[in-house]
Amino acid sequence: MTTSTPTDTLRQDVHDAARRARTAARALALLNRAEKDAALHACADAVLAAAPDVLRANDDDVRAGRDAGLDAGLLDRLRLSPERLDGIAAGLRQVAGLPDPVGEVVRGSTLANGIRLRQLRVPLGVLGMVYEARPNVTVDAAGLALKSGNAVLLRGSSSAARSNRALVVALRGALEAQGLPADAVQLLDATDRATVTHLVQARGLVDVVIPRGGAGLIQAVVRDATVPTIETGVGNCHLYVHAAADLAVAQRLVLNAKTRRVSVCNALETVLVDRAVAGVAVPQLVSALQAAGVTVHSDVEGGAELGTVPATDDDWASEYLSMDVALTVVDDLDAAVAHIDTWGTGHTEAIVTTDLAAAEAFTRRVDAAAVMVNASTAFTDGEQLGLGAEIGISTQKLHARGPMGLTELTSTKWIAWGDGHVRD
Amino acid sequence: MTTSTPTDTLRQDVHDAARRARTAARALALLNRAEKDAALHACADAVLAAAPDVLRANDDDVRAGRDAGLDAGLLDRLRLSPERLDGIAAGLRQVAGLPDPVGEVVRGSTLANGIRLRQLRVPLGVLGMVYEARPNVTVDAAGLALKSGNAVLLRGSSSAARSNRALVVALRGALEAQGLPADAVQLLDATDRATVTHLVQARGLVDVVIPRGGAGLIQAVVRDATVPTIETGVGNCHLYVHAAADLAVAQRLVLNAKTRRVSVCNALETVLVDRAVAGVAVPQLVSALQAAGVTVHSDVEGGAELGTVPATDDDWASEYLSMDVALTVVDDLDAAVAHIDTWGTGHTEAIVTTDLAAAEAFTRRVDAAAVMVNASTAFTDGEQLGLGAEIGISTQKLHARGPMGLTELTSTKWIAWGDGHVRD
Repeated sequence: MTTSTPTDTLRQDVHDAARRARTAARALALLNRAEKDAALHACADAVLAAAPDVLRANDDDVRAGRDAGLDAGLLDRLRLSPERLDGIAAGLRQVAGLPDPVGEVVRGSTLANGIRLRQLRVPLGVLGMVYEARPNVTVDAAGLALKSGNAVLLRGSSSAARSNRALVVALRGALEAQGLPADAVQLLDATDRATVTHLVQARGLVDVVIPRGGAGLIQAVVRDATVPTIETGVGNCHLYVHAAADLAVAQRLVLNAKTRRVSVCNALETVLVDRAVAGVAVPQLVSALQAAGVTVHSDVEGGAELGTVPATDDDWASEYLSMDVALTVVDDLDAAVAHIDTWGTGHTEAIVTTDLAAAEAFTRRVDAAAVMVNASTAFTDGEQLGLGAEIGISTQKLHARGPMGLTELTSTKWIAWGDGHVRD
Repeated sequence: MTTSTPTDTLRQDVHDAARRARTAARALALLNRAEKDAALHACADAVLAAAPDVLRANDDDVRAGRDAGLDAGLLDRLRLSPERLDGIAAGLRQVAGLPDPVGEVVRGSTLANGIRLRQLRVPLGVLGMVYEARPNVTVDAAGLALKSGNAVLLRGSSSAARSNRALVVALRGALEAQGLPADAVQLLDATDRATVTHLVQARGLVDVVIPRGGAGLIQAVVRDATVPTIETGVGNCHLYVHAAADLAVAQRLVLNAKTRRVSVCNALETVLVDRAVAGVAVPQLVSALQAAGVTVHSDVEGGAELGTVPATDDDWASEYLSMDVALTVVDDLDAAVAHIDTWGTGHTEAIVTTDLAAAEAFTRRVDAAAVMVNASTAFTDGEQLGLGAEIGISTQKLHARGPMGLTELTSTKWIAWGDGHVRD
């Protein structure tokens, strides 16, 4: 007889959950759209019906978080309210309204030998989600997974454990009542960080892990994982004010991209101003940003008189996620692209220009998930780009790049129909 | 001053190569199709012009391999000849004839707010290839990378080091003569296994690593990698002879899939015979296989009289890659799917049946890159499926599944054209 250490037991628990998820995923893959949409509506009803339980559990989480000294931003993301629960339920109904990606014929042809070939979209199988203290992610991820025919293993933050548990109880009850496997949605233990390690190393049992949260969380997942992962969310986004920019447009876009919501990954972090217009544009932008309450970190000449804070390489590298922005002058489009190559995270980059050749060159040469011409970086968002909903924004190039909607939660399968075809 | 260990130096070498590859990749991404096709033809010419050097280097590799006791199969894969070099050069010209995946508009629309949105296909950037003793992979991978606008770091086997070096010298010379960066194609040191580790951990410098070779190589790459990888090639392929099968078709397909080429990943490894037809089909298939020189490993009743070798779980798990096949009887389609779920590697699975519902159920329920109905498993191949050429066959679900052609060597980029659009 072997002796189990606590780690062995935990690993076993995660693997057992993944095996149950695989079994559930086999059933989910065969559901048609009507069945999945009915289940999504049932989940929405169940979340609303469970509101008293969920809000009580959430109160306990928030109180414990405050006692543990969580900062105000985290507490706000953790807190649920009847209105937020309405929004969460509405999100599930919205996903029900989206087209089913499963079964889509991606490519198809009849080969020279007569074989009828189709490449069909199929679910990935078992998704792992690792995320921080936002209970809405629990329901959003479950809804997107269900619609795309995937089972999901949820590993949220311990600070939201009670809220997540209450939500997942409601979702699982709704699935069971619909005759679907409850194990399509499972919440993993959040008390031990080792759960994350076991999840991201459950190769062969889990098909993809999507980390959502700060850079530390994402790096830890990527470092430890043997399961394929999708890196999300770090956005050091730039806006380049080109020599031929309409400066009124530039100012509007800079203010929108910086101040609309500072805590999101598509927020603007660095403004690059072309030397040709710097004399006019820099004072104008700095003053507008300061009037909006933004601290400008800059290395421009005369920055002290403009009231900017001296900038170092740390500022070019920084994803502030706050009312701060970096600003520098670049010699030309080449220098702007070079700055972005050096410091960007491949999320969203924008140019403001009236010059067609400059716009074309920027879109071709900048290597990022999204490139905006005369539009705010804030548009990099699944709903804004018409994907309907998103499970995260990928900043890697493999599998999915940019906002990930339902299509990005699928794989494909080749089906070949022959009449006894053999290969020479 | 710090002291470098040999490992530090090797890591530095790999990272330096990756940085040069990134710079080259920026230039490659901007090439149009005509420029890339001209370079591919120049590479083909250069390979032929370098034939004396390449064949001499290859002779040295083969001699050293024989002295080191490499088996006949490996020596055969390592050996080049004027005919094989012609084929390799022809492969480059064939890639030149394929459509350019870069710049394809994957999706596009005008959003409600007037933003013109396009999702364009773009190169991945820097590819890492880790492979075994087949020098043709060196040129094939370089050609596919070039056409898809990617730079490539090649890490072949030490047993093919001289051949690979001679080929890469020819390719780099051709690129330079075309005014393209030679560092688009770089051969990494093959003497130290640590090169592989440094390559697969060069996250941020290398965009994807594709291992091609045996299960051990692939597992090592996947285990050590922090760079995204694409798992390729292990194929434990099944053919299910359904109750309503045309047994003549079944026999033809089994023989083709098993004996056409035994060393390839799409070769048949296990035959599943439905109990309803086992009485007739098993003796017939066993006898046909034996007549073709195949050893049948089986647990069927009366196997001894049929001359089969007793089978264990090892046989169900085995990718023989030899003139061996496993054969067992299953109760029905459910049992066939369950056997494949347990033992399959997600490569290619086939059913032989005249029954539409059975064919539909099998294609929906089997979870594999390719599912064949009344067709040989041998059709899972990039050229056969119309992709033109392939860099490997993915058995994972993320990014690419099944044969990977040029399209699978690309990522995408969202481009949004606005007129000063800000988000509410």
